[in-house]
Amino acid sequence: MASEHIIKSYDEELQRLDNTISQMGGIAESQLGAAIEAVVKRDSDLATEVIEGDVQVDNLEREIESMVVRMLALRQPMARDLRQSIAALKISSDLERIGDYAANVAKRSIALNQTPPVRPVYAVPRMGRLCQAMIKDMLDAYVERDADKALAVWLRDEELDEMYTSLFRELLTYMIEDPRNITACTHLLFIAKNLERVGDHTTNIAETLYFLVHGTPLVQARPKGDRSSLAVVRGAPPGEAEAETEA
Amino acid sequence: MASEHIIKSYDEELQRLDNTISQMGGIAESQLGAAIEAVVKRDSDLATEVIEGDVQVDNLEREIESMVVRMLALRQPMARDLRQSIAALKISSDLERIGDYAANVAKRSIALNQTPPVRPVYAVPRMGRLCQAMIKDMLDAYVERDADKALAVWLRDEELDEMYTSLFRELLTYMIEDPRNITACTHLLFIAKNLERVGDHTTNIAETLYFLVHGTPLVQARPKGDRSSLAVVRGAPPGEAEAETEA
Repeated sequence: MASEHIIKSYDEELQRLDNTISQMGGIAESQLGAAIEAVVKRDSDLATEVIEGDVQVDNLEREIESMVVRMLALRQPMARDLRQSIAALKISSDLERIGDYAANVAKRSIALNQTPPVRPVYAVPRMGRLCQAMIKDMLDAYVERDADKALAVWLRDEELDEMYTSLFRELLTYMIEDPRNITACTHLLFIAKNLERVGDHTTNIAETLYFLVHGTPLVQARPKGDRSSLAVVRGAPPGEAEAETEA
Repeated sequence: MASEHIIKSYDEELQRLDNTISQMGGIAESQLGAAIEAVVKRDSDLATEVIEGDVQVDNLEREIESMVVRMLALRQPMARDLRQSIAALKISSDLERIGDYAANVAKRSIALNQTPPVRPVYAVPRMGRLCQAMIKDMLDAYVERDADKALAVWLRDEELDEMYTSLFRELLTYMIEDPRNITACTHLLFIAKNLERVGDHTTNIAETLYFLVHGTPLVQARPKGDRSSLAVVRGAPPGEAEAETEA
């Protein structure tokens, strides 16, 4: 944001757009943190707060869109300013989805609280912490317009995908061992999937930020660690379950 | 598109943008149709074609984004033309996600082919047909700039959500009855979830189209039929499984 525009209020508008994105990202990240806490502590009240809080994130997305449309109409931005306007639209859309996934984790935690605890829950806060760290670093990278930091976050998504794939297989094994675990494990499967999707949206933001800084797309194919859609766990009697993953 | 611009090539550009969106939507819809066929016919070759074909949809999204950025920079569109540019960005992003979900269904169909067939597969083509009809009607509504038709599609998403919730419960019951069904049913759960998400993205397009036509947001709260995240199926011995849904 070193550039200076003739009209000072234009710079202020661009700054306000940036601040709103940071604010939206901060809320999305803390919503996700609270949702994970709701799962771990089996706290349905906290989960309800998260579900109700999602409207804040939605409203900020609409606010950002109005700001961008007004800016495009009145300021007719060029070059980097134009890229920033488009980037703001795309980033706010990804943050809105992250907020949705947080609310979805919260909803499922309420259902989980009606089932007996199952052991694989331990993996959720690990995945959640990684997601939160990725979002936080990405927001820092956005404020600093640091494409290298964005790239580093983008690369960490592989770790998240690997955690997800491994949890997916573990959950299938648990279900096969004892059908009483099925309901809880199914909700955990979707919670884990939601976190894996949060990672994908964070990498989308990394790609947008990279384009914003360099004006060229981040072309490198993203390493894909999520192979759960190819996982096959053979049905076996309790105690004999074995997991196989077809790569 | 009755408006006439002084520069004729500008109208041609707007028309080309529309055509590219229609083309992208057509490919996304046929990708989804082929993915469903791959599930039903247990056809891994077809599934592989769908997975490989997703790059076409991705490329069209990038093409639309370049067209819009160029248009914003060179034409500085106002009012409805500006709304159309923003709408094109949003719609192409939703279509790209629909393409991703089609590819994901195809991936899971390959995993499904390694497990014995399970009965609840029958519900997938029903959900798939509804998704395809919604996408097709939405693309017609887009070409005709018909906000009422868009609203009708938007309302049909409730039916899709209800199909999903009912299939979700049925799949849980199947898993509880026989652990040998767990792997197949888990992949079906995610296939059904993918189709439910296709419906959500189609309703997003409806909202964008409504805004494009009327210049005001579609504010009505969408009826939400997907209550699967609240579903609890008590673990029970085979034959005694019972499903309960907490609304």
